[in-house]
Amino acid sequence: MEYVVSDRVKNLKPSAIREIFKYAADPSVVSLSAGNPAPEAFPCEAIAEISANILKTDPVAALQYSVTEGYPPLRRAVWERMNSKYSIGGENDDIIITSGAQQVMDLYTKTTCNEGDTVICEAPSFIGSLNTFRSYNCRLCGIPLESDGMNLAALEKALQTEKNVRFIYIIANFQNPSGVTTSLEKRRAIYNLAKQYNVMILEDDPYGELRISGESLPPIKSLDTDGIVVYSGSFSKVLSPGMRLGYVIAPKPVVSKMVVCKQGEDVHTNSWAQMVAHRFMTEYDFEAHLEGLREIYSKKANYCMELLDKYLVPAGISYDRIEGGLFIWCRLPENSKISMSEFCKQAVLNKVCVVPGNAFLTDEAQQCSSFRINFSTPTDEQLEKGIKILGKLASEVL
Amino acid sequence: MEYVVSDRVKNLKPSAIREIFKYAADPSVVSLSAGNPAPEAFPCEAIAEISANILKTDPVAALQYSVTEGYPPLRRAVWERMNSKYSIGGENDDIIITSGAQQVMDLYTKTTCNEGDTVICEAPSFIGSLNTFRSYNCRLCGIPLESDGMNLAALEKALQTEKNVRFIYIIANFQNPSGVTTSLEKRRAIYNLAKQYNVMILEDDPYGELRISGESLPPIKSLDTDGIVVYSGSFSKVLSPGMRLGYVIAPKPVVSKMVVCKQGEDVHTNSWAQMVAHRFMTEYDFEAHLEGLREIYSKKANYCMELLDKYLVPAGISYDRIEGGLFIWCRLPENSKISMSEFCKQAVLNKVCVVPGNAFLTDEAQQCSSFRINFSTPTDEQLEKGIKILGKLASEVL
Repeated sequence: MEYVVSDRVKNLKPSAIREIFKYAADPSVVSLSAGNPAPEAFPCEAIAEISANILKTDPVAALQYSVTEGYPPLRRAVWERMNSKYSIGGENDDIIITSGAQQVMDLYTKTTCNEGDTVICEAPSFIGSLNTFRSYNCRLCGIPLESDGMNLAALEKALQTEKNVRFIYIIANFQNPSGVTTSLEKRRAIYNLAKQYNVMILEDDPYGELRISGESLPPIKSLDTDGIVVYSGSFSKVLSPGMRLGYVIAPKPVVSKMVVCKQGEDVHTNSWAQMVAHRFMTEYDFEAHLEGLREIYSKKANYCMELLDKYLVPAGISYDRIEGGLFIWCRLPENSKISMSEFCKQAVLNKVCVVPGNAFLTDEAQQCSSFRINFSTPTDEQLEKGIKILGKLASEVL
Repeated sequence: MEYVVSDRVKNLKPSAIREIFKYAADPSVVSLSAGNPAPEAFPCEAIAEISANILKTDPVAALQYSVTEGYPPLRRAVWERMNSKYSIGGENDDIIITSGAQQVMDLYTKTTCNEGDTVICEAPSFIGSLNTFRSYNCRLCGIPLESDGMNLAALEKALQTEKNVRFIYIIANFQNPSGVTTSLEKRRAIYNLAKQYNVMILEDDPYGELRISGESLPPIKSLDTDGIVVYSGSFSKVLSPGMRLGYVIAPKPVVSKMVVCKQGEDVHTNSWAQMVAHRFMTEYDFEAHLEGLREIYSKKANYCMELLDKYLVPAGISYDRIEGGLFIWCRLPENSKISMSEFCKQAVLNKVCVVPGNAFLTDEAQQCSSFRINFSTPTDEQLEKGIKILGKLASEVL
């Protein structure tokens, strides 16, 4: 049997990161390639306590069908927090609880893009989202990312010349993979350009709560007086990724179409997870929990940067210091004797996994001299061991 | 702002059933319109016990990111059971755990259908799936359903004349909404026609375990020596719909494309739910649990049919006895003075909700003289009250 494959999916490949995970599964390999929260960041006891309570007092609600928009108390709790804390969500907006933030990317693309329409994104950008856009046969247009956000001239040119641009995809806080935080000036400028060219913004903010230094910047959605920003939030980095909980706050006409599509995709998000998240947000000290996470990640990030300074920088590999998130973007020197992808391959042979930077480009065949390091998943020991090996390798081959 | 809506989603409407739920939310209204499992069918204590155990001994596995294909022990347990019990799944097949069976409909359509391609389905059929097919701009071709399955002549004609037919969608056991079970002869005939015309079959089997009378029939997938059947199973009716667990067993090339799409849709299915389902299947007496469910639904179905015989049949409304599932399909008499949709409206005014049959057609504007009754959600008292009211109304207005 020759299986018919739709045009949109024909050229879709499994994420390059997944392929790397195969090596990373070898226990003798130090994996700096994942993006998992640190296991110690999960409030396991609180979740067990809440879960036991729900399954004792209200099991049917946790196990029965629920509404597509999400568990109403959780929708309210998230809305109120995002509204009071970040000025996100106005009277023309609404909220849906989704099965992880990945589903926001999927539902929004599905409802707004025809095949062949263009999505503007940062280059590099999060491969999971790029693959979602690709899975609807969208054309990707990457805008070079600078240390304070997208290159504005390139963005404006793309808005002028690209056809059927539907939205600008941006991770403004501690971007994955680059670690870059878009400055307030650039947030404003990107918003104004989107407005001027009548294009929406999809703001993906999974790491916003994980700031470890510098001043908190307003999300682009908080500037949204024109109803042009779709804001995607996630519980994956602040509670648990295994629970698959995300949310979208967006203009009502956008939300209502996304709800109809969500009905056809998975009916609704796991009820138990929604109830647990609601109680954790409202009956426990959620803000103190977030503060605890920032402490965990601050320690890990600073330790990782210390190790980079000690082992990689002397060997010619550079990086920009991060203010939050889970990733650091490392660059090979310009006069490097071997290519980045060759360096990553050699690293695997030396039992360390990192992600080659071209995996995050709109065109993976493009040249790229960077690779991504994650510091949240490995232990301190693994981090030190892995970066030491990378440093030794770099001093030998670069 | 004028929001751009993709062509595929432009004409998509929220499910008609959802609209009816708005009336059903009024506590004074008896709802026979839902499709929820009976609350007493949930093994709440076992789930609480398993959940507590997992969150105590292995919380990180339940809360951390997991693989897209699904929790390996659950994949194995489902595979082995379906293989040994129903001869489903051969060496060229593979399995994915999905976020409910609805996601199987979505992923399979996404991977195989271009916009404008045709899906052949039973008429009537499950509205949730029809809306998923519509959400990829598929053309729906409905084949009249007889008491033993699709009309074969109409099916063959469709296969001969329709363009770009990608698959035949069928619920062979206790179909939603009609209650019809496709006979073994027709299962074979449909399989052979699909093979002859080089078209796949998407077999949706959420109710297969809920047989209350008659002999169990082999799933079409068990006849699949040619690798042309995609089998969709669900935990929603046998464990809990709120957990959002389904699975697909299909040829490997189909599964691998569905995995890539699932990555972009929700990364993976809730880890906790997968672990709970696995332990429930392997450490508890799953078969005894299913036997208990059949007892619950047998009682409810038989009671419902008694009430229909007593109150609706004398008023001229007919129905076919069911052998399982959760739904009964009632027909107004041919010489009825009012239309089915008018009857359903009057029923709501009299505080009883049923689903008008045209909601399940490929073209909702078509004439239809049937409505759907659900007996699993209401209590016996609600069932009696509701059907009594329908009978009184029928005797007055038909």
